[in-house]
Amino acid sequence: MKDIIFGLSILFIASCMNAPESNPSEPERPAYTLVIHGGAGTITRSGMTPDMEAEYLAVLDAALDAGENILKNGGTSLEAVRDVIVLMEDSPLFNAGKGAVFTHAGTNELDAAVMDGKTLMAGAVAAVGNVKNPILAAFEVMEHTEHVLLSGKGAEEFAAARGLEIVDPSYFFTERRWKSLQTVLEKEKQQAELSEQEKHGTVGAVALDKNGNLAAATSTGGMTNKKYGRIGDTPVVGAGTYADNATCAVSCTGHGEYFIRYAVAHDVSAAMRHGGKSLASAAKDIIHTRLLSNGGSGGLIAVDAMGNISMEFNTEGMYRGYAKPGEREVKIYQDQ
Amino acid sequence: MKDIIFGLSILFIASCMNAPESNPSEPERPAYTLVIHGGAGTITRSGMTPDMEAEYLAVLDAALDAGENILKNGGTSLEAVRDVIVLMEDSPLFNAGKGAVFTHAGTNELDAAVMDGKTLMAGAVAAVGNVKNPILAAFEVMEHTEHVLLSGKGAEEFAAARGLEIVDPSYFFTERRWKSLQTVLEKEKQQAELSEQEKHGTVGAVALDKNGNLAAATSTGGMTNKKYGRIGDTPVVGAGTYADNATCAVSCTGHGEYFIRYAVAHDVSAAMRHGGKSLASAAKDIIHTRLLSNGGSGGLIAVDAMGNISMEFNTEGMYRGYAKPGEREVKIYQDQ
Repeated sequence: MKDIIFGLSILFIASCMNAPESNPSEPERPAYTLVIHGGAGTITRSGMTPDMEAEYLAVLDAALDAGENILKNGGTSLEAVRDVIVLMEDSPLFNAGKGAVFTHAGTNELDAAVMDGKTLMAGAVAAVGNVKNPILAAFEVMEHTEHVLLSGKGAEEFAAARGLEIVDPSYFFTERRWKSLQTVLEKEKQQAELSEQEKHGTVGAVALDKNGNLAAATSTGGMTNKKYGRIGDTPVVGAGTYADNATCAVSCTGHGEYFIRYAVAHDVSAAMRHGGKSLASAAKDIIHTRLLSNGGSGGLIAVDAMGNISMEFNTEGMYRGYAKPGEREVKIYQDQ
Repeated sequence: MKDIIFGLSILFIASCMNAPESNPSEPERPAYTLVIHGGAGTITRSGMTPDMEAEYLAVLDAALDAGENILKNGGTSLEAVRDVIVLMEDSPLFNAGKGAVFTHAGTNELDAAVMDGKTLMAGAVAAVGNVKNPILAAFEVMEHTEHVLLSGKGAEEFAAARGLEIVDPSYFFTERRWKSLQTVLEKEKQQAELSEQEKHGTVGAVALDKNGNLAAATSTGGMTNKKYGRIGDTPVVGAGTYADNATCAVSCTGHGEYFIRYAVAHDVSAAMRHGGKSLASAAKDIIHTRLLSNGGSGGLIAVDAMGNISMEFNTEGMYRGYAKPGEREVKIYQDQ
């Protein structure tokens, strides 16, 4: 009898040791988590028509579907963020891929980056003008070169050499973004104050997969009226994009120069690593305290290794959404 | 008598309060501190002639003189790091400015960055081929644009528009670097292992001035045989260059891709800010533990707000030196 009780005790202890997820103080890691954004800025109800709102929400939903489909079927976080970004790049609604804003010269110069939280490998392209999906070029850089960041004509040659779809630059022409440039140029001529609206914009995705691997990806057309080969935070690993399985995956959007100077994406990871902060606390601190008090507008999405998410922004709105098993949300405004 | 003693006591306490520097537990901040590097890598005594060694040490000494001269006369840390880098860019010895390495195509694509620890303003240029002193272009970006990072032809146009000295690309031809490219191309053809030697190299400077302001600057020709508009860590604020009066100023050198993926310069600052680490501990951790264990070779120089310095590297040598009032050192090898 003693032996049986002893045996049962051992069994019980062993089963407890093998199932730490049954401990209520340690919440179970979800099978997957996906968070996406389509840019932060002056996005208000009064500036939006019901049709536009419905269109944005539909693309955000479709992007979540694309990523969730992969994660549900055992795909990796890298595959999920890749397909989310491709879908959003192909939509004319967001400032990335097809919907990229125009430079001062009336051209399009696109940037994108990806980072793998498991290996800390990363790939990025800056100032490409004829690659249909810059995020795929960023993946090629990560997977098939010894480099992290390729730029300009060289990056375009590389993308073509890797067999990616090259388009005529006219592919990136959209009436709406062209008008934005004309408005900004006109205001510049009148030396009027340029509003932040329509100037920035980005798409991003972060994911956690069933193996506990994190990934982050970001893509953008940059800033309307940008000059002189300006590169923003998106392709700058540590500024607009970062992922580390030991901490979190982050994708940023906003006034890129501030995100570079404060190394925002890496700062969230570093506050967790060096300061032992939670993801929520780290993200709130950089977005609502450090950036805001210094005039930096924008936001970020993030997911940590336990599937906790953050969607912080200090602007009036951010196109955003997330999905976990049995949970989904898509939102636009601050007061939602 | 009591009143006199009381008065003297008050005087004594007040004088102590006004002179915290007299407290032996709080070391006095030096009037200035300057640290410089000329690249880290496979730099060994056996690979060096006495003449070459003397030449390197002479330029390091001249660079320290240039910066120290400014700091001694009440100049700013920004002015000091600017003049140090210009002098080192003008020397053919280092992989920056005149001595820049060649790309795969036989051209030169130079990168540089500067950051102001007081304001966290930063400026950088990437892939410029005709600007005599890329560091001056980085300063112009910081001081005269709303941007942080300009690239390629656009950055060249900007530098010309700001009146900087534009040179024929042949200015950057040096026999030694051309031979390096031919050696690397030959090895590539034979599919031989490419050595790290001669491939990388950078110059950098960090300074603390009498007002307690920190600054960091870095300049490079990048990586021999680089392709496709590759950008390394130097112009990536947070990777190769960072400065924040609240923590430290950092300039890195080494295998740039690793420095981007680990956001090395910002990580030193973040370990101090979020983790309360000392500069020495933060710099040692990233260079000797995280980078080394993951295969990342290189080093960094740094100075904190109290004038403590760090010159850490995990390679066989790093051209380096520092100067404080009454102190100076220039070194090359690890065992010095």
